[in-house]
Amino acid sequence: MNRTTALRNPIFNTCSASRRATSVASSVATSQQLPSVIATRRDFSKITAKKHVSNVTNFKIIESTLREGEQFANAFFTTDKKLEIATLLDDFGVEYIELTSPAASAQSLHDCQKVAALPLKKSKTLTHIRCTMEDAKLAIESGVDGIDLVFGTSSVLREFSHGKDIEYIIDQATKVINYVKDSGKEVRFSSEDSFRSDIVDLLKIYSSVNKLKVDRVGIADTVGVASPLQVMEMVKTIRGVVDCDIEFHAHNDTGCAIANSFVALEHGVTHIDTSILGIGERNGITPLGGFVARMYSVDREYVKNKYNLKLLRELENLVADCVSVQVPFNNYITGYTAFTHKAGIHAKAILNNPETYEILSPEDFGMQRYVHIAHRLTGWNAVKSRAQQLNLELTDDEVKEVTRRIKQLADVKNQSMEDVDAVLRSFHSEVTKNEMSHHVGIALANGHTPNFFANP
Amino acid sequence: MNRTTALRNPIFNTCSASRRATSVASSVATSQQLPSVIATRRDFSKITAKKHVSNVTNFKIIESTLREGEQFANAFFTTDKKLEIATLLDDFGVEYIELTSPAASAQSLHDCQKVAALPLKKSKTLTHIRCTMEDAKLAIESGVDGIDLVFGTSSVLREFSHGKDIEYIIDQATKVINYVKDSGKEVRFSSEDSFRSDIVDLLKIYSSVNKLKVDRVGIADTVGVASPLQVMEMVKTIRGVVDCDIEFHAHNDTGCAIANSFVALEHGVTHIDTSILGIGERNGITPLGGFVARMYSVDREYVKNKYNLKLLRELENLVADCVSVQVPFNNYITGYTAFTHKAGIHAKAILNNPETYEILSPEDFGMQRYVHIAHRLTGWNAVKSRAQQLNLELTDDEVKEVTRRIKQLADVKNQSMEDVDAVLRSFHSEVTKNEMSHHVGIALANGHTPNFFANP
Repeated sequence: MNRTTALRNPIFNTCSASRRATSVASSVATSQQLPSVIATRRDFSKITAKKHVSNVTNFKIIESTLREGEQFANAFFTTDKKLEIATLLDDFGVEYIELTSPAASAQSLHDCQKVAALPLKKSKTLTHIRCTMEDAKLAIESGVDGIDLVFGTSSVLREFSHGKDIEYIIDQATKVINYVKDSGKEVRFSSEDSFRSDIVDLLKIYSSVNKLKVDRVGIADTVGVASPLQVMEMVKTIRGVVDCDIEFHAHNDTGCAIANSFVALEHGVTHIDTSILGIGERNGITPLGGFVARMYSVDREYVKNKYNLKLLRELENLVADCVSVQVPFNNYITGYTAFTHKAGIHAKAILNNPETYEILSPEDFGMQRYVHIAHRLTGWNAVKSRAQQLNLELTDDEVKEVTRRIKQLADVKNQSMEDVDAVLRSFHSEVTKNEMSHHVGIALANGHTPNFFANP
Repeated sequence: MNRTTALRNPIFNTCSASRRATSVASSVATSQQLPSVIATRRDFSKITAKKHVSNVTNFKIIESTLREGEQFANAFFTTDKKLEIATLLDDFGVEYIELTSPAASAQSLHDCQKVAALPLKKSKTLTHIRCTMEDAKLAIESGVDGIDLVFGTSSVLREFSHGKDIEYIIDQATKVINYVKDSGKEVRFSSEDSFRSDIVDLLKIYSSVNKLKVDRVGIADTVGVASPLQVMEMVKTIRGVVDCDIEFHAHNDTGCAIANSFVALEHGVTHIDTSILGIGERNGITPLGGFVARMYSVDREYVKNKYNLKLLRELENLVADCVSVQVPFNNYITGYTAFTHKAGIHAKAILNNPETYEILSPEDFGMQRYVHIAHRLTGWNAVKSRAQQLNLELTDDEVKEVTRRIKQLADVKNQSMEDVDAVLRSFHSEVTKNEMSHHVGIALANGHTPNFFANP
């Protein structure tokens, strides 16, 4: 795919939706005037936001399993587990590992020091603290590479949580940011509940901390309320105010965390927060696996070169075990049905070319494709493929006949793959016997010794 | 919330993102010129797409558990289960129930007839078939209210699946649509894999079937490849070509199904396909629960009036049991941690006002909020609230002291709520004893009989 050309696709810049039929002609005309690369694949899956702000192929992951994830109801990470998870995340290749504040408890401080002292190959360590001098002092002493400051900015948080006004927030932020910068650490300043914060307040705060030369500002959808277009507008607005990097943190209460993270990258965000299996407060945040699936679907090579994708399953199993949950049946990439194809029409096409119904290649993630044929929606193409795997030779008409039998059985009760294999074998032996007697009959009539192994 | 005013919010119409600081001033100025209703809540969570195309508060659900869901690897629905699920979906209030094609198997035809014959209060029945006269004939005979036709339109499907060209597709569609319309049934025509289809081909097909007066056209992200802005552009383009309703079907391979469905509604789509727990091919489609959470977060009253939200958990348990999966730990709304609050700072605010960290009210879904305090991230406000629930009177200083003890214990090993309650009770009795001896000492020194039950 020629990304640069696709990114210039004028369809993306269409400004007004009109219900009038007159717009049809112009849409078609526009498409027909596209450069030739586009003309050959004028499909919408190639369209992304404008190149000059998009970081879809230039982003960093802040992996927060050891911070946001520790806020998951079931989470209790021992020091050893934290070290194991951090090491595996580094092997996977995330750019940052975020840790619980050393101010949370004595053990949290100790663990922060231990993880920060690991000889990591790629990942930098961060800790996430309240914007106070006490927390910042502890954080610096813990030895992490960078410090993520957070302050609640929404009116509802200011009224019911800390009760501070915007001037106080900026004053406090200035003190703490200067203090952290003097220590030589990387520093981020984030608002909390950004989408329910007053935009004027937010812009005041972000432009103030931008002047202090923070490394990043953070936008957080703390309650999972934002929609993709709200994220687009928010990011565009803030991108216009700051020249530092921008981090995005998305909760998933209403199912938009991955999509919102993607839209944020398209419009100028540089860093995305994730956790393994999405664990975090309530139903969690952007899951590492799902986010990787999304980014891989846009630029496979970039993602494959950046991360060791085959470690994803191990990371998820490790964390699932640690926090006593099962990997959800419908989990991205590693869920046990993620590469299972069932409907007859799907199975046929998948057997011809996996790209028909797969945008993720299972082998890139150390997974396998499975074409499920033991059910009433099955089709004869899939059954034929299974017969071939079992080395049972059948004509197309015979395959169609045995497919009818499988559908009949599957209509009565759930069938296992073993059940279907048994039907295939018994049908094949039935057919072979018939042919044998047929051959024997013909051979004997012709005075020949029959060849029982001739192809039907 | 005043939706009409919010929808006019000029921030949404900001056209160009600029990294130059000069845009700050104008953004701020624009916000300051907003009407007064907006001025009081200038937050981004109130911004949605333009009213004249948005169907965010005017949509219908096509519930496809008994069609797409039957394509889930584990699914085997007996006739009785289908009837039970359809009846409960009707009680919940979905507008449509979509069923597996009667052409799939003899039992599928029988089940279609049975569900179509149910005395449903609200839901209409549909069946989803290939665009052929044979399938259409069976579908009409099954007695459903409407028929969903599908044809693969992407070049990859045309090459590797059915091999038909666009003219053939339009010819075939015309025949079948006219035939279904003559029977008086509702009819939809959908492309398959719309986002990898040539947009010129799609517009030809949609405008042709629109002239035949189909009730709906369908857009399908069959492989889960679409991003929110691609959906926006696709829907706007097709909205300009047809005047009928538009249905949207989203797979979730890269985590955008719910967000894409939402963006589709914002730009003119009228019907959204869902399944319970999202079950379907591979890792499935837009889940009913997650979609409802999203829509509820935008207009609570509309969603509450339209659907019996308290039945969601029962529907999910029924289907999970039927297809032998567990409801995912992080499931929307009904996952067991969806309303659990853990971090000290969150717990404090939630106790003051649940809106601080909740955009969904648990009671509307028959669920309960849970503030988790048995861990090292706990805070004294949450501990104080628990002490009050247990009727243990403690001063703020005492609560802070017992919170330190709880954090110490939780640093060593995972604590249960019972463990914490035991610590609270033992601490309270310790404190009370000390106070008693203190009171006794003072009282005796003053020559009084001590009052053991005085407040400390």
